[in-house]
Amino acid sequence: MTRAEVQPSSIPDLMIRTAVRAALAEDLGRAGDITSNSIVAPTVRFAGTLRAREEGRVAGIDLAVAAFREIDGGVDIQVANDDGSDVVPGDAVLVIEGHARGVLTAERTALNFLGHLSGVATATRNLVEVVRGTRAQICCTRKTTPGLRALEKYAVRIGGGVNHRFGLDDAVLIKDNHLAVAGGIAAAVKAARAGIGHMVKIEVEVDTLEELEEALAAGVEVILLDNMAPDRLRQAVERNAGRAVLEASGGITLESVRAVAETGVDLISVGWITHSAPCLDLGLDQGARA
Amino acid sequence: MTRAEVQPSSIPDLMIRTAVRAALAEDLGRAGDITSNSIVAPTVRFAGTLRAREEGRVAGIDLAVAAFREIDGGVDIQVANDDGSDVVPGDAVLVIEGHARGVLTAERTALNFLGHLSGVATATRNLVEVVRGTRAQICCTRKTTPGLRALEKYAVRIGGGVNHRFGLDDAVLIKDNHLAVAGGIAAAVKAARAGIGHMVKIEVEVDTLEELEEALAAGVEVILLDNMAPDRLRQAVERNAGRAVLEASGGITLESVRAVAETGVDLISVGWITHSAPCLDLGLDQGARA
Amino acid sequence: MTRAEVQPSSIPDLMIRTAVRAALAEDLGRAGDITSNSIVAPTVRFAGTLRAREEGRVAGIDLAVAAFREIDGGVDIQVANDDGSDVVPGDAVLVIEGHARGVLTAERTALNFLGHLSGVATATRNLVEVVRGTRAQICCTRKTTPGLRALEKYAVRIGGGVNHRFGLDDAVLIKDNHLAVAGGIAAAVKAARAGIGHMVKIEVEVDTLEELEEALAAGVEVILLDNMAPDRLRQAVERNAGRAVLEASGGITLESVRAVAETGVDLISVGWITHSAPCLDLGLDQGARA
Amino acid sequence: MTRAEVQPSSIPDLMIRTAVRAALAEDLGRAGDITSNSIVAPTVRFAGTLRAREEGRVAGIDLAVAAFREIDGGVDIQVANDDGSDVVPGDAVLVIEGHARGVLTAERTALNFLGHLSGVATATRNLVEVVRGTRAQICCTRKTTPGLRALEKYAVRIGGGVNHRFGLDDAVLIKDNHLAVAGGIAAAVKAARAGIGHMVKIEVEVDTLEELEEALAAGVEVILLDNMAPDRLRQAVERNAGRAVLEASGGITLESVRAVAETGVDLISVGWITHSAPCLDLGLDQGARA
Amino acid sequence: MTRAEVQPSSIPDLMIRTAVRAALAEDLGRAGDITSNSIVAPTVRFAGTLRAREEGRVAGIDLAVAAFREIDGGVDIQVANDDGSDVVPGDAVLVIEGHARGVLTAERTALNFLGHLSGVATATRNLVEVVRGTRAQICCTRKTTPGLRALEKYAVRIGGGVNHRFGLDDAVLIKDNHLAVAGGIAAAVKAARAGIGHMVKIEVEVDTLEELEEALAAGVEVILLDNMAPDRLRQAVERNAGRAVLEASGGITLESVRAVAETGVDLISVGWITHSAPCLDLGLDQGARA
Amino acid sequence: MTRAEVQPSSIPDLMIRTAVRAALAEDLGRAGDITSNSIVAPTVRFAGTLRAREEGRVAGIDLAVAAFREIDGGVDIQVANDDGSDVVPGDAVLVIEGHARGVLTAERTALNFLGHLSGVATATRNLVEVVRGTRAQICCTRKTTPGLRALEKYAVRIGGGVNHRFGLDDAVLIKDNHLAVAGGIAAAVKAARAGIGHMVKIEVEVDTLEELEEALAAGVEVILLDNMAPDRLRQAVERNAGRAVLEASGGITLESVRAVAETGVDLISVGWITHSAPCLDLGLDQGARA
Repeated sequence: MTRAEVQPSSIPDLMIRTAVRAALAEDLGRAGDITSNSIVAPTVRFAGTLRAREEGRVAGIDLAVAAFREIDGGVDIQVANDDGSDVVPGDAVLVIEGHARGVLTAERTALNFLGHLSGVATATRNLVEVVRGTRAQICCTRKTTPGLRALEKYAVRIGGGVNHRFGLDDAVLIKDNHLAVAGGIAAAVKAARAGIGHMVKIEVEVDTLEELEEALAAGVEVILLDNMAPDRLRQAVERNAGRAVLEASGGITLESVRAVAETGVDLISVGWITHSAPCLDLGLDQGARA
Repeated sequence: MTRAEVQPSSIPDLMIRTAVRAALAEDLGRAGDITSNSIVAPTVRFAGTLRAREEGRVAGIDLAVAAFREIDGGVDIQVANDDGSDVVPGDAVLVIEGHARGVLTAERTALNFLGHLSGVATATRNLVEVVRGTRAQICCTRKTTPGLRALEKYAVRIGGGVNHRFGLDDAVLIKDNHLAVAGGIAAAVKAARAGIGHMVKIEVEVDTLEELEEALAAGVEVILLDNMAPDRLRQAVERNAGRAVLEASGGITLESVRAVAETGVDLISVGWITHSAPCLDLGLDQGARA
Repeated sequence: MTRAEVQPSSIPDLMIRTAVRAALAEDLGRAGDITSNSIVAPTVRFAGTLRAREEGRVAGIDLAVAAFREIDGGVDIQVANDDGSDVVPGDAVLVIEGHARGVLTAERTALNFLGHLSGVATATRNLVEVVRGTRAQICCTRKTTPGLRALEKYAVRIGGGVNHRFGLDDAVLIKDNHLAVAGGIAAAVKAARAGIGHMVKIEVEVDTLEELEEALAAGVEVILLDNMAPDRLRQAVERNAGRAVLEASGGITLESVRAVAETGVDLISVGWITHSAPCLDLGLDQGARA
Repeated sequence: MTRAEVQPSSIPDLMIRTAVRAALAEDLGRAGDITSNSIVAPTVRFAGTLRAREEGRVAGIDLAVAAFREIDGGVDIQVANDDGSDVVPGDAVLVIEGHARGVLTAERTALNFLGHLSGVATATRNLVEVVRGTRAQICCTRKTTPGLRALEKYAVRIGGGVNHRFGLDDAVLIKDNHLAVAGGIAAAVKAARAGIGHMVKIEVEVDTLEELEEALAAGVEVILLDNMAPDRLRQAVERNAGRAVLEASGGITLESVRAVAETGVDLISVGWITHSAPCLDLGLDQGARA
Repeated sequence: MTRAEVQPSSIPDLMIRTAVRAALAEDLGRAGDITSNSIVAPTVRFAGTLRAREEGRVAGIDLAVAAFREIDGGVDIQVANDDGSDVVPGDAVLVIEGHARGVLTAERTALNFLGHLSGVATATRNLVEVVRGTRAQICCTRKTTPGLRALEKYAVRIGGGVNHRFGLDDAVLIKDNHLAVAGGIAAAVKAARAGIGHMVKIEVEVDTLEELEEALAAGVEVILLDNMAPDRLRQAVERNAGRAVLEASGGITLESVRAVAETGVDLISVGWITHSAPCLDLGLDQGARA
Repeated sequence: MTRAEVQPSSIPDLMIRTAVRAALAEDLGRAGDITSNSIVAPTVRFAGTLRAREEGRVAGIDLAVAAFREIDGGVDIQVANDDGSDVVPGDAVLVIEGHARGVLTAERTALNFLGHLSGVATATRNLVEVVRGTRAQICCTRKTTPGLRALEKYAVRIGGGVNHRFGLDDAVLIKDNHLAVAGGIAAAVKAARAGIGHMVKIEVEVDTLEELEEALAAGVEVILLDNMAPDRLRQAVERNAGRAVLEASGGITLESVRAVAETGVDLISVGWITHSAPCLDLGLDQGARA
């Protein structure tokens, strides 16, 4: 499966350029790549293939390509497996030919983006596959790595998941700590509705079926069922009777996710697909051969 | 064990402020925290405790505190367990009292930094504890999360590890791809030495004992023994006879690290303590009580 | 009516500081305020009152105050009429006492923000007052001044209006140009729903009652009725029968808005309250007296 | 009349790129154009014409073009009416052909710049036409929209007006509030002259003919006649006898400007051409035909 | 002589903060001051005095103080010799007491600013003293160090000199290369006057007395007499007869400046006071004693 | 000798672009080049040659070229004498042909970079030539111009010198003020070694032969011999017997450097090659002829 097939909203180029330049600057420091610049003559060329070293789903090709291009505008790159592709160890991802200095200088930045985002996409995909056949979608949270939220949320989409809100400003999510200072669900929802525009949705976190009823009575679009066992989730789905979108969350693992999905909830949100997904192992080997 | 005891070089305040403001801006977007601002009156106060929800080592307190302070300069924060502390589930880390709007707005940014960096510190510490009693130190790499290198390297120090170079510019590391285009170890080291200043060290990656001899003959300060089995590492240690600093790397896990350490190498570098350490689970609960 | 009473979501302080510093830097250039610095001794003080010179609603006090404070941290400022206040010519808005150099240097930047945002708030309020008693709310658009969108949308809220989306990323609005390339309303809505998260609402622009039916059939949350005469709008309201939120737009003026509001639409969106609202005239006079 | 004919100093490209990228980033937010990216396939093309919907003078073509180009480097744009052209409703301004996603994503940013700057140019031109035949030039002030000063001043030039100073640092303007703390015109001018370089001009604001005499005695290059009626202005022109450049200001409208111009003043400065000029209405229609 | 006495326009605080933070970030890199942080305990204090090690005039105190304060907000600093003071070797400039880590971290940045700007001020002062008694003022150029123009121009003022234009945008200077493509002095001046506002002065560079007459005929405010010998300058002064301000330039040294000044020119502009002034030697010694 | 022959590590392009854009923005201000834009028609072309006006070594060609290219992407530039070339008065450095507006706008920024960096390279080369035949290398310090450190250190390499550390973070240098608060050399070195990674070198400043012995005993890699006379340096070299790298510093001039070099030290560090090197005089003349 490739990016063309899944067609998730892409990342704006402006954001890619900004992120890649900042990461390159972080790695280049003040003096640049003193290893490559000292020992590799400026005219020497390097042909290499960036390959997967473990099974997973690729995400972040545009960032990897941008890293190489920012350092050497004339580098030749073939995309062997684009975002959304599932790869096995040894599969080529990018085939690269360019000045050796440029390729070796950009290598680590390219791999750091690609490994991180492919890790997020792979973790998401793994959950998505387990719940296949249920109505549940896998969803991310705001528990993201500082500075990388939009990129990680893109990787979630590449993994087959869907995105929760991108920040504090694009949707309302009323959580337990809000309710503690806002005088209950009905009051909080009423205040929220008065304070936001008509294009903004409201979600409320509930811990019990009583709170679920309150939230439904308040007419919220989405309800977060926090830390409920599958039985309780099933009861919530029944009571809801299709009125609100139901999102389950709280300590969900690859092992427990199927049981949650089978309760009939619409969404299962998982923080660790963005904050704790292990990097996908990829490496650059000499030799240009897909 | 606390930060005062380990005393690792701290992070410059300028860097903390820059990182925290960028992360807050990422979360606030254009409209800010529309949930808190709509449903919480400006004068309402919130007292809460940020607690560990799993075992681990704390790192990133200064960033979490800065996140709350940037949003509400008057917030009162007590540090219950500073960077370097080992905590168990339920342990308080920060005790916070301030305007509810400010605390709830900054909460996620504070937790994202603290969880990520504590995760890195915890992963490092776990390896450090396994090798205790050997001469081996646990060391990080440049396989870091884009934008967070200096912070992650700080967390490695808090975990008891040591830092490899911070970028392409502060030390020379000649790897296999460099050697492929530079004409062998001797030539590469000679070129590097001519191109760098007297305060810069040179490390060479070697795959065999023959290359090790070449590197020693070239007089490099540090040698990276890549993907060698413990037996081979032991041979390398013997041949080296204390001349160069020896660093082992390649697929090292919590299970395999002790065997590597017992070969007598000086350093064991591990990419996953920075790029794949799971976030440490922490949360903010209502009620100010350490 | 004051800010405390309307309690619209406030602007994040980080955004205020960034906007004010950029505006001051634009005015200070490379050499700073060469007039004040040349002719006013550093110790001379200035007491002044910033007053309205025409009728309107105040918005932007925090930015004006920040402008004075950035230049002279010790300036003393009393807010006589906070955001949301309706003022008449001569009414004091801010009473200021500080170093003359600082006050005179910051004056224009403070006034430019305050005049612009109060202009937006006043234009909004004027429309809001005309439709009072109907169900219609006055709503802004993305037709904003480059760089000032979040501030102008805040001013719309201070004026009693509500906000449409803040950017291309926080809600879906399918317009005529989209439909032309997307194969009709049903296909476009289906594609949009597949591409976005569960917290994102969809709005479709329709030009005819037939399109309205299509949009309702597609289940969109909001429908934009573009350039329809009041009679047609009334028909649309009837056909809708409360299913979708209805937004009227297109060439609406202070004269025509009441007729539109009386058709029963939920929202009336007006571009000129942000892109063409005349600045509210305010000025700084010597003498500190509210 | 086109840009080539009026040849006003152009805006530096660096400034255009910076302004356009910031405006696009403001609109794209974190997730980009979720509407276009979800419902428009990447290969679909769009041909459209950006047309005037009301009478006015065009300004800001370079910014509009840059907005489209930043998003899609391969977009094809023909300029039908360049900066300085006077257009009537229906006149094409830009004819555009490119990827539909790119064109629709950049559309609003392009229009916001073009509408705002054309509004400033049109307001200026309207005043310029009324005073044609007199010696008076129409001049702008520092009452500009925060962040857009240089762009608005460029639009004033396109409208046929001239620019007053660009900031606090490039010329001296001694106003009433300065005089209040500086001990009178003679002392203030003397202090200013001692504090500035030989390439900097000095202007003094005067309210009476007595102050005019003081300013002339002090040898200032420019005198601002604030809020004087035409009769008084005529007296000022006589007394001045060509010694200083005379600038009239204060509440000047399209109706009153001719009378002011006929007094013989050199300049008439008007704040509202930058801070309150209504946006020129332009829109993008499908179909590429100038 | 101190800053209070000369009272030159000060540098905006915003500019000082921006410059100092950038310089500190340049020095701190990614890991901060690894020397001080490793070997100095956080509670240790340092008392020191920053003293002149050679004769000269001090400039840049605000930047030095800001460097220390940015790193340690609580540092105590006494200014012993403020900007504008003439110091001899051993004279205290700043007396500092604070955390040793902070003082030692900021030391080099503080000294780099202070040494550079004091060097500019000293070079300027030396010229100013040589021409004392003539009408000539010493003036700087745009031949400044990239990034430091406004600071260097401030130091020129502290040295008793005056400033030429700050950039390409605040005054017109028509040089030989312009004349070569603009069709002569008369045409160039006419075009310039048509293209600029009424607050902008025009200067023309002339190489001969014939060109001087052309420039005077064109009515320019300032004339640059480039590379003329004193005799020729004297002739130019005579022909000018007080009409334009006359500026001499070209290869002027401490030895030749008096002869130039005695010709009666108004200004002598010297590039090397900004681009080649040697740094004033200052150092930080332990022990807090002015 | 050209850049190709000396092959010093080059400056990252990202850094060049950032530095050049900032310098251009500083010169363009808000209104751009009002002289060229007013008096030179947009189509007029300019052919010129940038020539040396005094003897020296060229450094900074990439920055000069970037300055012209940023303003006019289509400018044609031939490099007649690249970085590392020694030039005499009249030698062409760059031959340029492009739009006159662009060339004249970028001229000063290009010259300011080229003159400053060539000045640093020339000062370094002059010292290098005097010590030729000894083992001593000429070395720079952190006494650099704020904002230009990496560029100046590059110019030092072009001059044949070597670089000391680039900042506080890439090597340890324990100076007298550190020792004063750290309890002596042995303790300081021990603490430093514990606080840094294995790729970081340690240098200690010593004033006496006794301290030299202490530093050698502590096993530091580099020792800074501060302000020692040649005789004392010779004694230090003997005692050291090749153990540590020895660096001499303190008040070294073109006259005294040979005597210092002949003592057998490895490095001679000189602050003034970066902070006080006079600008190399270069100028742009009409006429494209190398």
